[in-house]
Parts: sequence; structure tokens; C-alpha cells
Amino acid sequence: MINKLYFESKDKEIEKRAFKAIKREQDTIGYYSLPSQNIDYIEDYCNSIDDNIEAIAVIGIGGSSLGAKAVYEFIKPVEELSRKLYFFESTDPINIKNLLDKIDLDKTHFLVISKSGTTVETFSIYKYILSLQPDNKNYTFITDPNSSLEKYAKEIEAKVLHLPDSVGGRFSVLSVVGLVPLALCGIDIDGLIKGAKSVQNSFFQKGYLEDILLKKASFYAKNHARYNINCIFAYSESLKYFCEWYVQLWGESLGKRQRHSAFNVGLTPIGLIGPKDQHSFLQLIMEGTRNKSVTFIQIKDFQNDIEIPDISLPHLESLDTLNNLSFSKLINMQCNSLIEALDAQKDIPLDNIILEKVDSQTIGKLIYYYELLTSLVGELIDVDTYNQPGVEVAKVILKEKLKEK
Amino acid sequence: MINKLYFESKDKEIEKRAFKAIKREQDTIGYYSLPSQNIDYIEDYCNSIDDNIEAIAVIGIGGSSLGAKAVYEFIKPVEELSRKLYFFESTDPINIKNLLDKIDLDKTHFLVISKSGTTVETFSIYKYILSLQPDNKNYTFITDPNSSLEKYAKEIEAKVLHLPDSVGGRFSVLSVVGLVPLALCGIDIDGLIKGAKSVQNSFFQKGYLEDILLKKASFYAKNHARYNINCIFAYSESLKYFCEWYVQLWGESLGKRQRHSAFNVGLTPIGLIGPKDQHSFLQLIMEGTRNKSVTFIQIKDFQNDIEIPDISLPHLESLDTLNNLSFSKLINMQCNSLIEALDAQKDIPLDNIILEKVDSQTIGKLIYYYELLTSLVGELIDVDTYNQPGVEVAKVILKEKLKEK
Repeated sequence: MINKLYFESKDKEIEKRAFKAIKREQDTIGYYSLPSQNIDYIEDYCNSIDDNIEAIAVIGIGGSSLGAKAVYEFIKPVEELSRKLYFFESTDPINIKNLLDKIDLDKTHFLVISKSGTTVETFSIYKYILSLQPDNKNYTFITDPNSSLEKYAKEIEAKVLHLPDSVGGRFSVLSVVGLVPLALCGIDIDGLIKGAKSVQNSFFQKGYLEDILLKKASFYAKNHARYNINCIFAYSESLKYFCEWYVQLWGESLGKRQRHSAFNVGLTPIGLIGPKDQHSFLQLIMEGTRNKSVTFIQIKDFQNDIEIPDISLPHLESLDTLNNLSFSKLINMQCNSLIEALDAQKDIPLDNIILEKVDSQTIGKLIYYYELLTSLVGELIDVDTYNQPGVEVAKVILKEKLKEK
Repeated sequence: MINKLYFESKDKEIEKRAFKAIKREQDTIGYYSLPSQNIDYIEDYCNSIDDNIEAIAVIGIGGSSLGAKAVYEFIKPVEELSRKLYFFESTDPINIKNLLDKIDLDKTHFLVISKSGTTVETFSIYKYILSLQPDNKNYTFITDPNSSLEKYAKEIEAKVLHLPDSVGGRFSVLSVVGLVPLALCGIDIDGLIKGAKSVQNSFFQKGYLEDILLKKASFYAKNHARYNINCIFAYSESLKYFCEWYVQLWGESLGKRQRHSAFNVGLTPIGLIGPKDQHSFLQLIMEGTRNKSVTFIQIKDFQNDIEIPDISLPHLESLDTLNNLSFSKLINMQCNSLIEALDAQKDIPLDNIILEKVDSQTIGKLIYYYELLTSLVGELIDVDTYNQPGVEVAKVILKEKLKEK
């Protein structure tokens, strides 16, 4: 993983402060140590699931689904996986019915994931699916120790797995929340952890990424009022759900009231996919208000590459320059051309992340990189990166409405 | 279609100016009159396609694919369609190979859509697919009259359809660009046009929407510096690709240099899906910087509704309030609870669009509504809504790189 910054940032004092703060956080915030966890118990758990199970279905929303989905959708297009993975994460009735049409209930194992154990979406879906086959035992529950959900699971003698201490939903992909569904589908979770570990080392042990992450975070924080929109522009369709995970991580961690002021602050995340969004959002970046930074993500080796054939079409000879070019070269040339074009504008902060290839280690690195960046920026804009008080109000109103009905 | 505004806006003079300007535009900008076109020729064309064709594949990018995709993905979950529709819109080799694995080349008709006739993405994909079966005649080309692509198509004796005059890519879904792929899949394009027509009438003939659209556009324009991010929060998974279409329409139309100044202006579109994004982006709206407006979109009647069963789970009795509730009621209650919660903040401009149900007319209305809104705002922020000069620079650099290689 290479990360090149196209902007200048020099503020050693701020960088030092951020580094110190997140070193301190390591004792209380659980996600930092996930790359060092022992995951043997996940393997044991997976072996306990019947071989006749062909599909895994996560019933969960937000932090309970976005991480596993990001990894699954990245790996699935290039690897033959042992099981399919589905996500029930909406109360949209059309969506629920369509997902149910795709699976065979007898051959599906359900993972009901809810930290608190009382998520409205998760339990309305769970109740519905349970009613279709009340005797079905293919359920595992993932929740906090001693939650009401754990008590329920124990009462019905179902399997329960625990979330680790002090790991928030959106930082939980490298915990049981993400690892269990992924491992059940045959995804190499050792690789995932290994990738995260290498970024952890590179940052905390004064490796390559320390300097880059600190520079990037301090630039984003110092310029948060001007560049308040941070776009990822990923040149691979497989990173579409990684972008959704990023949107939750960034938006929910950084959008809140400052700890030591009355200010509402925040940085707005946007996920774009190239080259498609060159024909959509790009115009706004290039000529719109100068309030956006852009991080390009490229894949060096697409593994299953194909080549544009040497065909000349009458009247379209100008396109012959494409001939004999591999698609992976073309897509990276498109990305590099856009970086050049935007860099020439001088006032759009850019950086470029180059991933080696499409595998678990690579996505593990990218995930941990973004978690660290989020923690650093959160520290420097003075917010509590790990809470989400703003989502409660609507939940309370809904509960009232449900009681009244 | 009902649209309720939760913010005040009173500036009759500005509203009049915008209305006059877009009335004037009707003579030169082609999309306005699309609801009045005769579409018999599309039916004739569709009848000319062999019955053994099981799938339609669009090779096109941006304005050539996003509109049809938005409609198709809205309708597909509720209707049995006669053919499947695929979109080749990326140079990502993994994506191209995965799409090709899904289709049978002998039973697929390809629509190669390119206004200019020289889009790099479209032709690299076309050449690759052509090379797999050089004798395959299942291609139709959609392009501007007299483009090099038309000349090529004529030379190989393939079918050609023309884009109407003065209709830009992102405003072209109600033209041949969107109607042909949709009609070939059995989607009711008459309904689509009829829906658009009803919004057109309601706006231009002093109907219900005139007042609302003018108020909304003038509010967005007058407050563009403060509320520079405009979110759609759609409570239906089926509107996911509508949101992608909206992002292109809004971002590419409104992000540019003003006509009469040196300012770069723009409004940033964001598409969110509820209730999922209540567990993601919502925190940022609720407690982040106050620079976002939110338009909620709800569906009144989900047609295929299902109900949460009357099951009480031990230790989870607090969730019994969900019992016997239909999912369509629940999802709309979630949306209404969030509207209440955000409205109480007082400084987040909200509005709410309620769609009757999931069908072609409904999505036709929504499309034309957003096209009109975009034109109105473009007029009031003084940009040329219909061009996209900012996307050219990267294309030129790419062409140079291709020549050098």
C-alpha cells in the first residue's frame, strides 16, 4: 500500500499532539488491538456450522453489516467462495421479500447482530423470518455480554458470540461482527487481520505510514472549515461497498458537537467510483465550490485482467489508440489523467492510495488505515469520535409512536 | 405525488424571474418537451427485436446509463419483466468479466449508447465484447445524427437510433436513451411519460407544483452558500439508483463557474437510503455543521406488503410494540420520526415527497420534478445548467497518454 500526498502540510506540534492522544486512547478504545487478537475460536465456531448450509444471512444494520459487506463485495468478484452472504438491513418490505426469494431457509444460517440487543430493524426482520419457520435452529446471535438478546438466546439454547469490550459498531469489522460472517463464506480472515496488523505497525512503530497519516489528518483538521467534504474516488467497482463503510465511519465519527465548545463541526464523506463518476460528480469537483478534498484509490494488479483487442472500426479510427491495452492499464491511466487534471487546479487537496491487488490483506490494510485516520482527525477537531448521540432522538420518537399505535 | 416544505421561503420577485427564464428555455432546451413526444417508433423498434433475446445490455456511461438504471431498479423488484437489463459502464476488468459471466451472448441484444460516438469507456468495452463473437449482429447504436458512430453503424448495416436535438445526457432518460432499454424489458414507458407529463402540467399550468418548486428552488439558490449540500433521504431500497441519477443531474448541472462572474459555485448532492442511513450519515446531519438540506422521499403503498408477526420473545418483550405492524407502516413511521427529530432542530431545511406507489408513472413524476428543480436552481445561481466543461481536461490528458503509449 502506497499513499502519496499532493498537498503540503507541516505542523509538527499538532502532529505530535494527535499521535500522543491516540497512543493514549489505545488503553480504552478496543478497536486498536483487534489486529493482535487470537481468532482460533472463530475457526472453531465455523466448524460447528453444518456443511449443508449454503448461505449466510446477516440480520443487522449499520455497524453490524457495513464492514462485512465491504470486505465480501471486494473479494467475491475474484474468489470462488464456499458460501454466499446476504444482508437483511432494511425494513423495506419489497427488499425483505426479494432477499427471501434468493435463499433456501433450510440451507441458510442466520447471524442476528445487535450490540444493544434491541435494534428495531433487526428484530422486526428477525421476527418475520422466524415466523416462516418457527422450528428453524439455524441462528447465531452476536451481542454484548449480558444484553437482553443474550438472555433470550440462552433461553432458546441458541449459539451466542460476544462483541469485544469497547469496540463501537462502526469500528467492529475486524471483530467477531465482521470476521464471523466472512469466515463462514470462506474468506481468509487471517489475511484480513494480517493486513490490518501491518498498517498498525507501520503507524505505531514509526514506519512508512506514521508521517503520512499524521500529515493528512492534521491537514484535514486544520482546513476542516474550508475543505469540509472529503471524497474517496476509487477506481474499482469492487470498492463500492467499502465507500459505504467509509461514509458511516467518517460521517458518524466526525459529525458532532465539539467536546470543549458549543460548535457543531463535521466532515462530510462522499464515495465515488471511477471512471463512472468522471461522468457525474467530477464536474462539481473541477468547477464547483472549492470545498472538497479527493483521495484516489487505485488497484495495481487486477489479477483477472483482459485486453482491448486490436480492432479498427471504420470511421472510428481515432479510437485505435486503445487497441492492445489491458483494461487494468486503461483504468489506471484514466485515474492518473484525472489526478493530473485536478492537481493542475492547485487548490484541490489530493492524495493517492495504490493497493497491490484484490485480496483480504489489501482490504484489511485499507480498513485499518481509515480507522486510524478517523481517530486522528476526530482528536484534532475535538470531538468524541466513538459516540453517536445524534441518532437517538428519532429512535425515542419512534418508540413513542409505536406505543401509541 | 405530494411535496410538503418544512421551511419558509417568500421572494415572489425571484420566483417570477426563475419561472420566466425556464419558460423561455423551453424553445432551446430539448428535455422540456419529451413528455409530449410520440413514442410509437420505439414500439416499432422493440417489435423488431427477436423474441429469443432474453437480456438487454447497455454499453454506455453517465447520462447513457444512469437514467434507465434508476427506473429499472425501481420497477424490477415489484414487476415480472420480460427481459433482464445489464449495464456495462466501467473499464474495471473484474466488473466486465463478471457481467459477461451473467449473460448468454447469443441471447443478448446490446445497445451501444454514446452521444458523441467516441466515449473511451464505451468503445473499449464494445471492442472487447465484439471480439468474443465478431459475427454477432445483436447490436443497436444510439447516437447523435451524423456522428462518426452513426457512420460506422451504417457501414456495418446495424440499427441506429438518434438522440433528439438539444437533450443533454443527464436529461435524456425520457428520450430514446432511457425509453428503448426500458421498453425492451417490458417496462411501461407510456406510464413513465404520462407521469412526467402530469408534473409538467402541474408546474407550467399553474398547478399544485408551481408554487412548491419555485419556493424550493429560490430557497436553495438564496441559501446556496450556507446550505451547500442537498441530501435526498429515500425510504425505499428501490430508490438507490434514482439517487445515483440525482447525484449526476444535480452535481454536473450546478457545479460550475457562474455565467456572469469569476466565482466557482455549486451544490453538492448526496443520496441516502432509510432507515439504513439513520445508522450512518444521520449523526452528521443531526450534530454536524449546519450546511445540509434534506428531502425525504417516502412511498405510501409498497404493494407487496408484509407484516411483523405477533411473537413475543422472552427477555425482549419491549419489542412487542412492533407486533402486527406492517413493514410499510413501520418504515414510514421511521421516516416520520426522523422528520420530527430534525425539524425540532429548527436550522435544517427539510421537505418531504410522498409517492403513491411503485410504478412507472410514479418514477416518471419524480424524474421530471427533479429535472425542473435543477433547471430552476441553475437559473438562479447563474450557471449554464446544460454544459459540463470541467470533465474535458482529464479526457484530453488521457488522449495524450494513449497516443504516447
